[in-house]
Amino acid sequence: MTTPVPVPVSAGGRELPHPRRAEIRLENVLQALADPMRLGIVRELAAAGGNELSCSQFDLPVTKSTSTHHFRVLRESGVVRQVYRGTAKLNGLREDDLDALFPGLLGRVLDAATRQADRLGG
Amino acid sequence: MTTPVPVPVSAGGRELPHPRRAEIRLENVLQALADPMRLGIVRELAAAGGNELSCSQFDLPVTKSTSTHHFRVLRESGVVRQVYRGTAKLNGLREDDLDALFPGLLGRVLDAATRQADRLGG
Repeated sequence: MTTPVPVPVSAGGRELPHPRRAEIRLENVLQALADPMRLGIVRELAAAGGNELSCSQFDLPVTKSTSTHHFRVLRESGVVRQVYRGTAKLNGLREDDLDALFPGLLGRVLDAATRQADRLGG
Repeated sequence: MTTPVPVPVSAGGRELPHPRRAEIRLENVLQALADPMRLGIVRELAAAGGNELSCSQFDLPVTKSTSTHHFRVLRESGVVRQVYRGTAKLNGLREDDLDALFPGLLGRVLDAATRQADRLGG
């Protein structure tokens, strides 16, 4: 049994709900990654090498509410951690949690996404 | 560019539509695997070590039409190949196609599923 990792409280007091590590489920992670736009967000976060990115740094061709929905799915599945810094919502990949639960999975999905983008010219 | 692999024609003449290798998309594969019942089917097929299993060999707690739906999603995403042998529909994992397109992905998903089942006692 994995010990749940405490969710850090954001400095601003507004805290968004996240699954603890032990609550993350494979089916929810796969579901979150199965959407091209969400997978694109995850690829950008991975490329940021551990740096957090605010939602507004992503250039998504959708409405604000659709964008918010996608980030929420990523957060609620345990793929992304979102914290408020002032008025900005910062996003970071939960690579440590995912690799502890599902070793190598995120890396293989990211590699698969890169291969497909190269193949299709995306 | 990957050369599309011809879909073999079943002896019985009734042939089900499958995506060619080059038509398989990561998002559809992840979507197919994101459902617990479909992931369970894939785990059983993987455990069968390359042997084909008929739909009726799976003990699924759902109606026939729901079961048929799940197998269709697996087939249309490119995860499973279905062929008729007489009146039986036989299912086989498309491991070669998936590993050619997305090396290691299926293995990591199967490993993740095993780990989760062990962790949750499933």
